[in-house]
Amino acid sequence: MIRIGIVGYGNLARGAECAIAQNPDMCLAAVFTRRDPAAVTIRTPDVPVVKLGDIAQWKDRIDILLICGGSATDLPEMTPALARDFHVIDSFDNHSNIPDHYAAVDAAARETGHIALISAGWDPGLFSINRLYAEAVLPEGKNYTFWGKGVSQGHSDAVRRIPGVVDCRQYTIPVEQAMEAVRAGKDPELTTRQKHTRLCYVVAAEGADRAAIEDAIKTMPSYFADYDTTVEFITAEELQRDHSGLPHGGSVIRSGVTGWDRECRQTIEYKLTLESNPQFTASVLVAATRAVMKMYQRGERGCKTVFDIAPADLSRFSREEIIAHLL
Amino acid sequence: MIRIGIVGYGNLARGAECAIAQNPDMCLAAVFTRRDPAAVTIRTPDVPVVKLGDIAQWKDRIDILLICGGSATDLPEMTPALARDFHVIDSFDNHSNIPDHYAAVDAAARETGHIALISAGWDPGLFSINRLYAEAVLPEGKNYTFWGKGVSQGHSDAVRRIPGVVDCRQYTIPVEQAMEAVRAGKDPELTTRQKHTRLCYVVAAEGADRAAIEDAIKTMPSYFADYDTTVEFITAEELQRDHSGLPHGGSVIRSGVTGWDRECRQTIEYKLTLESNPQFTASVLVAATRAVMKMYQRGERGCKTVFDIAPADLSRFSREEIIAHLL
Repeated sequence: MIRIGIVGYGNLARGAECAIAQNPDMCLAAVFTRRDPAAVTIRTPDVPVVKLGDIAQWKDRIDILLICGGSATDLPEMTPALARDFHVIDSFDNHSNIPDHYAAVDAAARETGHIALISAGWDPGLFSINRLYAEAVLPEGKNYTFWGKGVSQGHSDAVRRIPGVVDCRQYTIPVEQAMEAVRAGKDPELTTRQKHTRLCYVVAAEGADRAAIEDAIKTMPSYFADYDTTVEFITAEELQRDHSGLPHGGSVIRSGVTGWDRECRQTIEYKLTLESNPQFTASVLVAATRAVMKMYQRGERGCKTVFDIAPADLSRFSREEIIAHLL
Repeated sequence: MIRIGIVGYGNLARGAECAIAQNPDMCLAAVFTRRDPAAVTIRTPDVPVVKLGDIAQWKDRIDILLICGGSATDLPEMTPALARDFHVIDSFDNHSNIPDHYAAVDAAARETGHIALISAGWDPGLFSINRLYAEAVLPEGKNYTFWGKGVSQGHSDAVRRIPGVVDCRQYTIPVEQAMEAVRAGKDPELTTRQKHTRLCYVVAAEGADRAAIEDAIKTMPSYFADYDTTVEFITAEELQRDHSGLPHGGSVIRSGVTGWDRECRQTIEYKLTLESNPQFTASVLVAATRAVMKMYQRGERGCKTVFDIAPADLSRFSREEIIAHLL
């Protein structure tokens, strides 16, 4: 049994708790929180909720920690700090800062002979693996990543910060014609605007200036200004009724050519359709605990990424079983 | 530079020759043939065609061999035999005999400290990897594999052996409604007949009994009897004009559930659309040379499968580059 500790108890952590319960070779050992543990109720019976400050006392009772914090401020601090005492996995997803995060976690983990996996999940994660496989197999070609239709929490949060906005759910939607052009092997050059549109369901405060809110959204730099954005005002009840889930997904597509005269078009598509983004992301982290423990047992130390994981290490089945049933 | 030898010069080998030319870190060292080398003309300038019987003399001039033979009779003999003198890769695709083939190749390769990769390609190969990833991430769910639309060479050959048949091209076609039911998360139980149909374009000899040919095809055990099969008679010119390519493809789909009450449906689909099946399969074998050489340099010996390959080992780019650009 792999004894897993979860740090945090937000959406991702709750997804991890559920995923652990689906894997017979794992168990949840404890949940660690910065809040008052008495105020946190988890679903797994007989598992303690512990103050994060007391985590060092759990060194011998935990095989590996899933650090379920945010990439903006939590993980850059927490992952290197915890990698000194534990094997750890995080889902750091701030793509441009991954090299720095990698270096910090690698140094911390190596200092004390631990192993860490960063940026696991689906993007970064399964999408990254598929970008790499596809590029290796089709060296002459082009990778495209489309996201959605799905809820972007970062964009929803950005809208919520606008004065007069009570709540918001923002959907990222891939442009179907752009995906079809890629699938048809047309190798299009696509601008940001041509790849995705954005749709915001906004609950406005009573008496708020809706035109001003709509304008503030549509002109917001980096988040919305480069996209065709639609804003729809709905009631709090409608938001709760129709948009309480966190669906997401997307496709990694590589279109490339093979043959002496590059005469054959070959297309690889990896597509996710997710009713719950945090539960799926958590399921990847949880499967990865198995791989990370096996790699540690083989003597590997320091920071790893999903690129370092041999698929066999993710499975709970033996080498003989996977060769017989999955190959 | 990885110096690659190719054994055989059929469709797969010719695809490998093209793929090697697309990878700047590899070169073709020689092609080995059972035929008279003078009768074999290859495309790469200044590369020798050598009698297969003389291959032992090439031990020091070749880093790894791609064995491009058939799974029925060639590979069970050739891969273990050649693994005694070389690192080797094959595309053995007789799924039910893989465990035996694995054991034979493993024993041979270990005897002399070589490394071997068997059953590379797309199925087995990339499809296998995706079945494994999807099952590891979604332990409660179901895997489906659909093939086509594409040419099955084994089925085309089977029809060609019927008296009165001059030539045939057989297409395997997935049943769209079955795929849609899987994508919709309905977890259908599907019979062989419900998953794929078969379409045969047949060139009959002059005066042949077409009704008898059609009957012989449709009732042929294991190849056609369990499928809804359509037979169309066409001329040799039409076959040549409209069906000279070897397209193929298919999808691996896993639909599973997550959440404490299994309340969220999650679907993973990996889809290939290939204008040339042999060129794509060969492109996988060629990318794998890189991984196998790196694994050998780390001390690995014996028989491996695609499940043992960490994605990073397939890339020609450095760890830093793949983390910065693909993660």
